[in-house]
Amino acid sequence: MKEYQVVGKSVRRLDALEKATGMGTFTTDLVLPGMLYAKVLRSPHAHARIVRIDTSRAEQLPGVEAVACFKNTTRKRFNHSATMTFTVPPMEAVLDECIYDDVVRYVGDEVAAVAAVSERIAEEALALIDVEYELLPAVFDPVKAMEPNAPDIHTRKAGCFLCGKNIPGEKIHLALGNVEEGFKESDVIIEETFYLPVQKQAQLETQAALATVSHNGDITVWSTTQTPHPTRQILSHIFEISQSKIRVLNPPYIGGGFGVRIGLSAKAEPIAVDLAMKTKKPVKIVYDRKEDFTSTDTRHSGIVTVKLGAKKDGTFQALQLKGLLNTGAYCSFGAETIGVLGAMGLSVYRAPHMLYTGNSVYTNITPAGAFRGFGNPQAMFAIESVVDMMAEQLGMDAKELRLKNIIKPGDPWILPYSCQSTGLTECIEKGAKEIGWERRGKLNKPGDRLRRGIGMAVGTHVSDAWPFCGDFSNAYVTIQADGSVHVASGVPDMGTGTRTTLGQFAAEVIGVGMEHISVTIADTQSTPFDIGSHASRTCYVAGQAVMQAAAEARSYALTYAAKMLNEPLENLTIQNAAVYCRGERKLTLAEVARHAHLHNEQFIGVGKVIPQNAPPWLAHFAEVEVDTETGQVRLLKLVAAHDVGKAINPVIVEGQLQGGVVQGMGYALSEEVLFDRDGRSQHDAYHKYMLLTAEDMPEIKAIIVEAEDPTGPCGAKGVGETGQVATAPAIANAIYDAVGVRLKQLPMTEERVFQALQNQLN
Amino acid sequence: MKEYQVVGKSVRRLDALEKATGMGTFTTDLVLPGMLYAKVLRSPHAHARIVRIDTSRAEQLPGVEAVACFKNTTRKRFNHSATMTFTVPPMEAVLDECIYDDVVRYVGDEVAAVAAVSERIAEEALALIDVEYELLPAVFDPVKAMEPNAPDIHTRKAGCFLCGKNIPGEKIHLALGNVEEGFKESDVIIEETFYLPVQKQAQLETQAALATVSHNGDITVWSTTQTPHPTRQILSHIFEISQSKIRVLNPPYIGGGFGVRIGLSAKAEPIAVDLAMKTKKPVKIVYDRKEDFTSTDTRHSGIVTVKLGAKKDGTFQALQLKGLLNTGAYCSFGAETIGVLGAMGLSVYRAPHMLYTGNSVYTNITPAGAFRGFGNPQAMFAIESVVDMMAEQLGMDAKELRLKNIIKPGDPWILPYSCQSTGLTECIEKGAKEIGWERRGKLNKPGDRLRRGIGMAVGTHVSDAWPFCGDFSNAYVTIQADGSVHVASGVPDMGTGTRTTLGQFAAEVIGVGMEHISVTIADTQSTPFDIGSHASRTCYVAGQAVMQAAAEARSYALTYAAKMLNEPLENLTIQNAAVYCRGERKLTLAEVARHAHLHNEQFIGVGKVIPQNAPPWLAHFAEVEVDTETGQVRLLKLVAAHDVGKAINPVIVEGQLQGGVVQGMGYALSEEVLFDRDGRSQHDAYHKYMLLTAEDMPEIKAIIVEAEDPTGPCGAKGVGETGQVATAPAIANAIYDAVGVRLKQLPMTEERVFQALQNQLN
Repeated sequence: MKEYQVVGKSVRRLDALEKATGMGTFTTDLVLPGMLYAKVLRSPHAHARIVRIDTSRAEQLPGVEAVACFKNTTRKRFNHSATMTFTVPPMEAVLDECIYDDVVRYVGDEVAAVAAVSERIAEEALALIDVEYELLPAVFDPVKAMEPNAPDIHTRKAGCFLCGKNIPGEKIHLALGNVEEGFKESDVIIEETFYLPVQKQAQLETQAALATVSHNGDITVWSTTQTPHPTRQILSHIFEISQSKIRVLNPPYIGGGFGVRIGLSAKAEPIAVDLAMKTKKPVKIVYDRKEDFTSTDTRHSGIVTVKLGAKKDGTFQALQLKGLLNTGAYCSFGAETIGVLGAMGLSVYRAPHMLYTGNSVYTNITPAGAFRGFGNPQAMFAIESVVDMMAEQLGMDAKELRLKNIIKPGDPWILPYSCQSTGLTECIEKGAKEIGWERRGKLNKPGDRLRRGIGMAVGTHVSDAWPFCGDFSNAYVTIQADGSVHVASGVPDMGTGTRTTLGQFAAEVIGVGMEHISVTIADTQSTPFDIGSHASRTCYVAGQAVMQAAAEARSYALTYAAKMLNEPLENLTIQNAAVYCRGERKLTLAEVARHAHLHNEQFIGVGKVIPQNAPPWLAHFAEVEVDTETGQVRLLKLVAAHDVGKAINPVIVEGQLQGGVVQGMGYALSEEVLFDRDGRSQHDAYHKYMLLTAEDMPEIKAIIVEAEDPTGPCGAKGVGETGQVATAPAIANAIYDAVGVRLKQLPMTEERVFQALQNQLN
Repeated sequence: MKEYQVVGKSVRRLDALEKATGMGTFTTDLVLPGMLYAKVLRSPHAHARIVRIDTSRAEQLPGVEAVACFKNTTRKRFNHSATMTFTVPPMEAVLDECIYDDVVRYVGDEVAAVAAVSERIAEEALALIDVEYELLPAVFDPVKAMEPNAPDIHTRKAGCFLCGKNIPGEKIHLALGNVEEGFKESDVIIEETFYLPVQKQAQLETQAALATVSHNGDITVWSTTQTPHPTRQILSHIFEISQSKIRVLNPPYIGGGFGVRIGLSAKAEPIAVDLAMKTKKPVKIVYDRKEDFTSTDTRHSGIVTVKLGAKKDGTFQALQLKGLLNTGAYCSFGAETIGVLGAMGLSVYRAPHMLYTGNSVYTNITPAGAFRGFGNPQAMFAIESVVDMMAEQLGMDAKELRLKNIIKPGDPWILPYSCQSTGLTECIEKGAKEIGWERRGKLNKPGDRLRRGIGMAVGTHVSDAWPFCGDFSNAYVTIQADGSVHVASGVPDMGTGTRTTLGQFAAEVIGVGMEHISVTIADTQSTPFDIGSHASRTCYVAGQAVMQAAAEARSYALTYAAKMLNEPLENLTIQNAAVYCRGERKLTLAEVARHAHLHNEQFIGVGKVIPQNAPPWLAHFAEVEVDTETGQVRLLKLVAAHDVGKAINPVIVEGQLQGGVVQGMGYALSEEVLFDRDGRSQHDAYHKYMLLTAEDMPEIKAIIVEAEDPTGPCGAKGVGETGQVATAPAIANAIYDAVGVRLKQLPMTEERVFQALQNQLN
C-alpha cells in the first residue's frame, strides 16, 4: 500500500476551532446594513385553490416593505431539488413548482411572504393577509393516489411531466435475465412487503438564505444549500437572469444537510431573492423549526416488496423488487429516489435473474426528496429482512448465506459501471468477529423477560451520481509566493469535513503539511463549477479534481525548480514543503515560489474531473435487548464495518459512519413523521419528533476496511451516506433473533414490537 | 485594421448604473456586526523620539476595546508601497517602516491607534493618550538632508537599505554613449534647473480598510488598495502569517487611486488588522481628509537639471539629466520613482549621448510615493522646457525640432525593451492642427494686457513595470452552463473602467456581447495572482491574461461544438453567442454549454501573462491667456493627442486622458502642498489645496491615435498615466509664447508669473 504523508492521517479539521468555540458563521448569523426579514404564510389546508388573496392590510403595517404572493411574483416553474441541473436527456426533470401558486397542495405550502424591518413585524403582517380558499379533495395514501378517481394533484402543465395518475417522471424498470425463469429454477421463494415511514433529516440548521440584488440586477445569495453552483442555475432559471450575474455561496458554514438542500434550501433562496428584488434591500429568511419539519423535504415513505428465489444450497436465483414511494405534494427528487432504490437494491447480491419496477407518487403531504441513502435504506430494510428469512428457511447461517451470494468484481450486475473492488467479505468477517456472531441464538434462557439477539445486514452504495445524472467537479489550486497553497472547490462542507479532506489531497499531492493549506469552498464566484455535495461524491469526485489541480500546480513548481537547480525534472520531488534532488534537500517550496514570483510566474493548476463510479460496501451488526413485556428495544452494540476504499481522514470517516448509524438507528426504532386525517404533521418539532438521544446510544464500533478502488482518489470511495443503509435491517434481524418476531414496518417502536409479540402469542 | 465586435466600442461601463445612482459599495460603506472603529493618534512633531507613552487613560474610557502603539504591536519592518512584493534582485526593497515606531519622522506619523465602538469614542480616546516626546532636529530641504551634518532620519536597521546620507535605495545611473563627447560635438548647449512641487492625488475616497480575523487566525481585509494580491503579501510579511490565510479584496469599488495605494492604503490595512487581532472583532478605519493629505503618499517634489546639446541643424547630440527627489520621511516608492524619472526622460528623443544620475532623499515631510506618471511629469517639465528654449536659440520651430529628434523604432535608446511602434509624429501633427499651431507667435498685438500664447510638449511612458520590476497577470475565464461568461482577474477597478475593459476583451475573444459577461476583480480569494493596478498596466497586461484565458475557454467550447456537429474544428467560429459552421449559424453558445454541462464539462480557461512592454506616446498643446498685470494664467484650450495603441473602449480612454490632463493642469498652475518651518502641512484639506474646478476648465480635446503595438492586447498600450506627462510643459511653453517669461518652478501660480513678469521688466 502506498505510503502517504497527509492522506490517511486524522489531521485536525480546519473548522475545529471555529466550530468548537461557536464562532463559525452560518447563514442565520449574517447581518447586512438595511437588511429585511422575511416570513412565510403557509397553507393550513392539504389541497385548496386560492380564490382570493388580499395583502393590502399587511402592506400597510408600518415596517412592512413588501408582500409577495402568486399575483405579483413570477410563476416560472421549477423543481427545488437540483434535478433540473443534472438530469440528462432523454430523462426529463419534473418542474412542478413555482414560488407561490394559486393552488396549495399540502399543509405548509407557500401562500405568501412578507419582508419587514423585523421578524416580529413580518410575523404580525402574516396575520393580516386575507386568504379565501376553495377546498379541494386531498389524498394521502400513495396507493389510493394512483386510483383513477383520486384527485389530480398536478396537471400536465409545461414541465410537469407525468407518466400516469399522480405519477411524476418515469416508472423505473430494471431487468437482468428473466425473473420468471429464475423463480421457476428456485427451490425456495420468499415474498414479503415492507412499509417505510417518513423520516426527517432534522439537521441542526434550518433552511436559510440571505439575498441581495444590486442596482445592476446582479444577485448574491448566501444560503444553506449543499450545491451552490446548481442553486445558481436554478435561480437563473426562475428569475431568467444569466448565471454569471448570480453568486451563490455558503457563509461558509452550514449546519448539516443530509440531502435536505441539494438544490434550493427548500424555497429559502427564491423567496429571499424575489423579496430583495421587490424591496431593493437585502432580505434574510430563516425557517423556524416547524417550517423546517412541515415544508422541507423528508425521506420518502413507501412500500417495498421483495421476492427472492434460491436454490437449496443457498444460491440466489432470482430477485424481484417493487417500489412505491410517496413523494408528497411536489416531486423534488422523487423520480431519482425511486431509481436508486431499485439500482442499489439489486447491486448487493449476485443473481442471474433480477427485476425491479417502481414509481413515485404524489400525495398531499410534505414533499419527500433526498435524504442520506436516497432510497437505498428503504430497499435494504426489505431485502435484508428477506435474506434473513431465506437463511432461516434454508437452515443456513445468515452470514454464510450472504458471503455466498454477495457480488464479486466481474459478476454480472445491474449497474452501468463496473465493480472494480469490494471489501464486503472483509467487512462481514471483521464485523462478525467484533459483534461475536458465534453467540447468535445462544444468548437467552427460556423464560427470560429481557431477551437478546444479534442481527446483521449488508449493503452497498455509490460514490457519486454518474451515470444516473450529470456529475462533475472542477478545482483550482494555486501556490502563493510564500509557498502556501490555496485550494478552490465549489463543493460545500456541510459538516462532513470536506474542507479538511480536500486540503489533505492538495497537501499530499504537492508535498506540504496542512499548515500551508487554505481552502475556499462553496462560492460560485471563487470556484469553477462543481455539482455540489450529494450522492456521497464529495471526497470521491471533488477530491479527484483537487488532486488533479494540485498535480498540475506541483508540476509547474517542479519544472521551475528544475530550471533553478539545472537538474533534470525526473530527479526532483517535493516533500515537507521542500524540493529534493535525488534525496537531497535543495530548496524550500517557498524559495521556489518566491523566485518564480519575482520572475512573473504563479503555479496555477486546474482540475477537471468526469468521474467514474465505485461501490462502497458495508456490513452492519446489531445486538439488541427486547423487553418482551413492553416491546421496548434497547440497542446494546452496533458494529458498522465499511469498505471506504481509503480513509483519507480516518477520524472524519468514523464520524461519518457513526453519524449515519445513529440516523439508521432512529430510522429503525423511533423516527417517524405522521400526518393526521387532514394532512397535518403530528411531528413538527424536535420535542415531538423522536430523535434518539445520547442516552439511547449503544456502543458503536466503526470498522474501516480499505479495499482501494482504482477509480478513487488515493483509492477512496463514497462514505457520506453509507452509514445508514443497513442499520435498520440489522436491528430488525437482531430483534427477530431475540424474540422471533419479524417486523415489516419501520420504525420498530415499542408499540409495534409489543403488538407483534402479542400477535405471536395468538 | 482588424474588425472587432466589442473591442474598440464605447460600450456602457459595467459600473455606470451603480456609480450614477450612488449605490456602489465602497470600503467606507461596509458594516459588520460588532464592528469597531479605529482612529489614529498622529505626531505633532516633524522628528522626535517617544520617551514615554501612557495609554491607560484611553483604555479605561468606556467603549474603547484596544489601544495600539509601538509597545504592544509588532515592529516588523516593511514598506507600505508594493515595492517589497515586486522588487527584483539584485535590487533590494527599502523596509524602513513599522506600524508604530518609537521615533516619529514627520508631522502626521502614526503614534498610536484606538479601536472603539464608535468613531466619536475612538476620537475622544486619542486625547487621553499621554505621550512625551524628545524633539530631534528635523530637515525639510532635500539638498540639506544630504549634507554630512544633517540629522539621520533613518539608520541602517535591517531592511532599511541606505546608499548615502539619508539616501534610501540606490543612486540611479543610466548612460548611452559618452555625454561629455556629445557636448563637445554640440553647437548649442542649454543647461537649466527646474523645481517641482509636492502634488497630492486628492482622490475622492480616502484611505480605508475593514479587517476581520477569524478564530483560526485567517485574515480578511476589504480595503481601498490598488493591488489586492501584493497587499496580501505585505500583510503576510508584517504579521508573519502565510499568504494563503489572508484574503484582501475591494468592496468592490474604490474612489480613485492615482498611485496613492499601490501596496497598502497608507497604513489602513495593518492598523485595522492589528486592532482586529487585539480585539477579536472587525475593525474599520477610514482616514479623514486631513489624514489623507498629511499621512499618505504625495507626488515627489524635487529638482531636475537638464543639459541639452544640439547641432546647428537641430540634431540632438547629448542629453544629460540630473534628478533629486524628496521622498519625505519614508522611502515608499522613492527608489523606483527616481529611476522612472530618468528612464522616461531619456526615452523621448534620439541622441547618441545620454546620461542620467539621480537619487531620492529623506526629509521630515509627508512621504512621497507613486502618483500618476511616477517621476515622468517631473522629468518632462524640465526637458520640454529646455527643448523649447533650444528651438528658440536655434531659430527653429519648436514642433519641427521635436519631429526631427523624436525616437523612431530601431533607434538606440536607454530602455531594456524595444520600441516597436510610435504614433508620436501623428500625435504631433494632429494636435498641432487642432490647436492651430500656425497661429503661434501671431496672437497678440503690442500693448495687449491679455496676451495669448500657444505651447506644446511631448512625452512617452510605459505600459507596465516590466522589466524594472516584477510584473505579471493571471486570469480565469469560465463559460457557464447557459453560455454566459465569468471573468476573474486580480486587478482592481479604481474608477478607470478596468472591469468593463476586461469584460470587452473576454466578449471579443469568445464572440459574445457584453450582456453575457460578468467580471470579478480585486479579490485574492476569487482570482489568481495579479500584481495589481499601477504603471498603466491594467489593460495592457491583465487584458492579455483575460484574452488568453478567454481564448482557452473558447477553444474548449469550439472543440466541444465540433464534436456535437461532427465538423472539423477549423470550420467553426463563434459570433453573436452562437457557433457558426462555414458561415452558417448552427448552435447557440448556450446550447453548447448546456450540452457540455450535461456531459460533465465546463469550459475553463486560464491566462498567464509575463508581459513585454510598449511605449505609449503623447503630444500636448496648450493655448493660454496671461494677464500681464496680475500674472493670472487662463487656459483656453488643451489638446491631448495620444497614441494609445488601440482604444479598447474609446470613451473610457478619453476619460482617462481628460482626467490626466486636468491633473496636469493643476500641476502646472495651482496644486502644491507647502510645509511650514516646523514641517506642518499648510494644505491639508480640499478647501486649502488648490485643485482646479469645473470653472477653471478650458476646452479639452482628447485625440486618440492608434499605432497598434504588436505586444499589446488588440494592439493596446498603457494609457492610465500618460494624460499628465506633458501638460505642464505645454502650458509653460504657451506662457513663454504669450509673455516671454520662462517659468522654471511649478506650479506657475499667479504670484510666480507676476514675479517673473516683474523680473522681466527689470
